[in-house]
Amino acid sequence: MPDKRPIGIFDSGLGGLTVMKEIVKLMPKENIVYFGDTGRVPYGTRSRDIIHKYALQDEKFLINNDVKLIIAACGTVSSIVADLPNTLPVPFFEVISYAAKMAVSATRNKKIGVIGTSATISSESHKKKILELDSNIEVFTSPCTLFVPFVEEGWISADDNVVLGMVSRYLEPLKQSGVDTLILGCTHYPILCDVIRKVMGDDVTLINPGEALALAVKDYLENNDLSNVEQKGNYEFFVSDKTATFEKTAHMLLGEKVEYNKVKQVDIDKI
Amino acid sequence: MPDKRPIGIFDSGLGGLTVMKEIVKLMPKENIVYFGDTGRVPYGTRSRDIIHKYALQDEKFLINNDVKLIIAACGTVSSIVADLPNTLPVPFFEVISYAAKMAVSATRNKKIGVIGTSATISSESHKKKILELDSNIEVFTSPCTLFVPFVEEGWISADDNVVLGMVSRYLEPLKQSGVDTLILGCTHYPILCDVIRKVMGDDVTLINPGEALALAVKDYLENNDLSNVEQKGNYEFFVSDKTATFEKTAHMLLGEKVEYNKVKQVDIDKI
Repeated sequence: MPDKRPIGIFDSGLGGLTVMKEIVKLMPKENIVYFGDTGRVPYGTRSRDIIHKYALQDEKFLINNDVKLIIAACGTVSSIVADLPNTLPVPFFEVISYAAKMAVSATRNKKIGVIGTSATISSESHKKKILELDSNIEVFTSPCTLFVPFVEEGWISADDNVVLGMVSRYLEPLKQSGVDTLILGCTHYPILCDVIRKVMGDDVTLINPGEALALAVKDYLENNDLSNVEQKGNYEFFVSDKTATFEKTAHMLLGEKVEYNKVKQVDIDKI
Repeated sequence: MPDKRPIGIFDSGLGGLTVMKEIVKLMPKENIVYFGDTGRVPYGTRSRDIIHKYALQDEKFLINNDVKLIIAACGTVSSIVADLPNTLPVPFFEVISYAAKMAVSATRNKKIGVIGTSATISSESHKKKILELDSNIEVFTSPCTLFVPFVEEGWISADDNVVLGMVSRYLEPLKQSGVDTLILGCTHYPILCDVIRKVMGDDVTLINPGEALALAVKDYLENNDLSNVEQKGNYEFFVSDKTATFEKTAHMLLGEKVEYNKVKQVDIDKI
């Protein structure tokens, strides 16, 4: 039976809006509740315990909003919870597993690269998932710490020498290792895909985890007859801190205008 | 009468260690308690209310450690509290006022530049303090959002084209405006001073707020007979989140080795 309840998406900040963008593109009728933990962003540099505690609060907030499933649109959170059993009362999706699956399908030479925050890369979650699927694959990784600050500053042009120089420095070793597939393991990274493509070359397949995840969610909803059938989805946005740059950043990441005064603030520490 | 109680220093993260470095250089006998709110860093992109709430918790933690005075070694916090009356039971020093004073003394052409985080720059705190001292001075500002991420990544060399290109993009307009004095209004920025000097030229005086503040603290302690007279100061470090990069970052900012296992973790939300 069709289910009008919203899809819940959370992220450490606004990066998860690139995942939401893929969900909207593929399932325009679904209602969505988005929570961005902008008051405690970034998660990527924090310890495992703190990240886990934050994720539990974020999930509880979405459960309180009667969502039909939860998406952790955050590479850092996903890397920590990907191997844990789902204890939530609704289905849970994260951005590691489906990206790994898509990369394994895409690679021809069995050399896959993974980029993400320090926490994501040192967790080796993508690598583990990839090797579970095919133990003959070689995985090469690089934490690209400056990608997120550049995206948030809006320095994203492939014609900008500073941006190109910064991206090249992180990616050159991966290029030298001969990967033919590269997982963009952080939600902000798809915004830099023109620059990444310029550095890596057209022969390397870039995997956008949001796209891989959206396909999996669509399958799940259809197979369980839980899709929404209303005309167009309704979107609600919550953050833990409202900052002046919200509208600009949200527009860049989501590709749609989100009015600042329609975004609600949540005291996530009290959830 | 000499006072053995420690000086309390807090910052949103580890950046305040550059201020501590100046305190140690000038007053090697003083005991110091440092608190870095690494669990909630950065403050610079957060709203005024959140920053204020965090500052009160940080101060309370230091008070509980029986400090004889408190230094807000954080440009963002200082910019918000610089104009508020001190309600603490001990003297309070922030990094705006003394930097402004030193810059006003240094300028010859009455054109001062100020760089800092978005929050610091949009607060216009340095500008207000400067104009209070001399209303004929012209103040030019620029938020340099990517400076902190570059410093934390260790990309700080004046011979690095990416670093130089990034710094130039932010500073070129200030250089064009003809400032002869530049306040480095964020604790991380002194680490980039070689690059900043290369871009601005040798004729521009760079003001390190930590240095200005250390001079003021030394004056205060001497004038009130509150200096410590023991042989060498003892240093205690507290953070709200212990991350793997602590030792590396602390060494870069403080210029001294701080052993990771001697750093204590504090649950600052519960203070």
